[in-house]
Amino acid sequence: MAVETEEPDLHVRRIRILQKQLANGGFDAALIMQPRDLFYYAGTAQPANLWIPAAGEPILFTRRAHSLARKATWIRRTVEANSYGDLRRSLAEVGALPKSGAVVGVEQDVVPAALVNNLARHFADVTLKNVSPLILRQRFVKDPTEIARIREAVEAWKAGHHQVLSRLVVGRAEYEIAAAMEYGARNAGGDGVVWFRRWDGCLPGGGIVSSGPNAWVVSGHAMTVTGVGMNQGLPWGASARVIEPGDLVVVDYGVTREGYHADMARTYCVGKPSAEQKALWDRLIELHFTVIDRIRPGVTGEELYRIGAETADKMGLAEFFMGVGADRGRYVGHSIGLEVDDWPVLGEGSQDPLVPGAVVTIEPKFMVPGLGAVMVEDDILVTEQGHEIVSTLGHELFYV
Amino acid sequence: MAVETEEPDLHVRRIRILQKQLANGGFDAALIMQPRDLFYYAGTAQPANLWIPAAGEPILFTRRAHSLARKATWIRRTVEANSYGDLRRSLAEVGALPKSGAVVGVEQDVVPAALVNNLARHFADVTLKNVSPLILRQRFVKDPTEIARIREAVEAWKAGHHQVLSRLVVGRAEYEIAAAMEYGARNAGGDGVVWFRRWDGCLPGGGIVSSGPNAWVVSGHAMTVTGVGMNQGLPWGASARVIEPGDLVVVDYGVTREGYHADMARTYCVGKPSAEQKALWDRLIELHFTVIDRIRPGVTGEELYRIGAETADKMGLAEFFMGVGADRGRYVGHSIGLEVDDWPVLGEGSQDPLVPGAVVTIEPKFMVPGLGAVMVEDDILVTEQGHEIVSTLGHELFYV
Repeated sequence: MAVETEEPDLHVRRIRILQKQLANGGFDAALIMQPRDLFYYAGTAQPANLWIPAAGEPILFTRRAHSLARKATWIRRTVEANSYGDLRRSLAEVGALPKSGAVVGVEQDVVPAALVNNLARHFADVTLKNVSPLILRQRFVKDPTEIARIREAVEAWKAGHHQVLSRLVVGRAEYEIAAAMEYGARNAGGDGVVWFRRWDGCLPGGGIVSSGPNAWVVSGHAMTVTGVGMNQGLPWGASARVIEPGDLVVVDYGVTREGYHADMARTYCVGKPSAEQKALWDRLIELHFTVIDRIRPGVTGEELYRIGAETADKMGLAEFFMGVGADRGRYVGHSIGLEVDDWPVLGEGSQDPLVPGAVVTIEPKFMVPGLGAVMVEDDILVTEQGHEIVSTLGHELFYV
Repeated sequence: MAVETEEPDLHVRRIRILQKQLANGGFDAALIMQPRDLFYYAGTAQPANLWIPAAGEPILFTRRAHSLARKATWIRRTVEANSYGDLRRSLAEVGALPKSGAVVGVEQDVVPAALVNNLARHFADVTLKNVSPLILRQRFVKDPTEIARIREAVEAWKAGHHQVLSRLVVGRAEYEIAAAMEYGARNAGGDGVVWFRRWDGCLPGGGIVSSGPNAWVVSGHAMTVTGVGMNQGLPWGASARVIEPGDLVVVDYGVTREGYHADMARTYCVGKPSAEQKALWDRLIELHFTVIDRIRPGVTGEELYRIGAETADKMGLAEFFMGVGADRGRYVGHSIGLEVDDWPVLGEGSQDPLVPGAVVTIEPKFMVPGLGAVMVEDDILVTEQGHEIVSTLGHELFYV
């Protein structure tokens, strides 16, 4: 087993939990194909298909780099299978072929239609059903190894922050600030990639730099502070806009270590903040901790969002909270882990209670046309007693 | 129209070409959903669905950021549609609903099964069919605007190369060399992202740094020089291996500008190359130009690969060409454009002749266990008369 872990039986436990959920959910088996989920259950993201029956032993069907995959995985039984035909024949050989009428789970939210159609041709006698909700719900609760990796990602984020502080001056373009952030995180051992569950999600360099008037333009690729991007091919993230004196600059980045995300944001002011900027920041931080203070097992994402919205309302800032006017996002954070947009979003309609081991972000912002945007984002572990803030950077309005 | 172009009627021409192909291919319409294809036909990658009938006017159905999308697109008719239900109703209102039994193209190679299933429920009376082969075949031929962008991407790549030269020393980790490459390209205005067509394709930071013995380990995520990656979550690209004296270091990166890729590779030696290293490089460059010299309209990818393989054979290096021993890749390059793995791969079975306006890469490598790997990759435009090398960096074995 090539993967180091603090819990030697981690993989056994992960697969048993999924098997229980498969049985409860009426699935006879699942075929895991997406790299994040493969990494989670098999310990490697080499190209492979992982067969997990509701009862019995899992099999890793390696598609390429067979010996590397075999060396890396913690799955005991591995078989080379370059096609779904190979895979079906192998299952038949070991007597593991699902019965006619069986339900087999696939990750239909991310696996392309052509691939699922191909699988369906080879398994015409079974019903394919989306298994991703079970997987994402399991991934919501982190084990100590995962939390340790998120802590490391936070350190890489902070290395990026120090580069931002040293490069942020009037006359630099937003993309040069982005380059500094990414350089700092990568040199600190960041993986150099941010993963989205959303099939069409992607962020240039893994994050957003948005300054001055760009901060109240909202791209369709996310809600609230998005930046406007380098071009119409990816119209969010840093742009070529040049920083001006007095600008508020929001830096919101995903940074990964060993596959796990930190997702943090801070706001920087170019020159000493005006009284108005400072007051806006102070109210943001007050709101931020009002929400964070309520994080404990049992609280729902909807409740956290409501607390944020009510606080903004009391402050007279409702129309600038999480967007501008009617065009606001109805959420205040989300879960993180193997993907930056892990399930669930903490917002309207989010009725699932938080549980110990969940790691979520809280990311309030005020977007004030004419003034700019302030945003803060921290990563928070839900504990038995309440919560622990995992991201350790200070909560000042940094200025340079 | 927010997008600058050297060809004012570019968009009209692109859509007319697809419409002709749709009609020839038996499609009544196509619904374009993937961001790269949206950018190509609609001029923006804001979240939207683009309806292109085989005959008649296209309609852009914006999903979010409606006013930004409207401002950016060159499609005249835009409609807000937050669901496939909205989309169907709108088509009905303007009398554009496909007849019962019609064939509608969708990008089934990349759009997730759940989304296509959802579309199929709303259009139960039509047949959905994969339209991507028509789109990718059209995108194979670049117009002057696209070629200009690839030239800009080459310049950003070279800025990364200069950073590599200044940072590559004994004792640095592969990921620090990657950080330098990415920093140089991003500061030169690179988009900070590399796009794959393959649904599970992703590269940390957009490229590969592979040194010493890592250079003959081949991850399943690509063929030949892949690096081993930071962890099993993404087991290719730069690793934490520390550079040693005399190492050969392959740097193979995709770099984008305005959505278009340069894909280049060079090999660096840490310290003056040995006679053996230099001789291997010289033979690689001889092979490289033997292949490039044959590029002209009419030649096939298979022919180019055969020329490379035969040349390696004559040199007595067949077992090290494009891999090691039996485990070799049967190709010598690929097309580039809006995706780094644009159609087609230039290799075995690639029978489509090159045409003027195509931009392809040629990327030979020798992987010699015990010695290391040498690799070179250049981007080449197919012209009426033959070809032009678009990437302009020198062909020396750089050493530091």
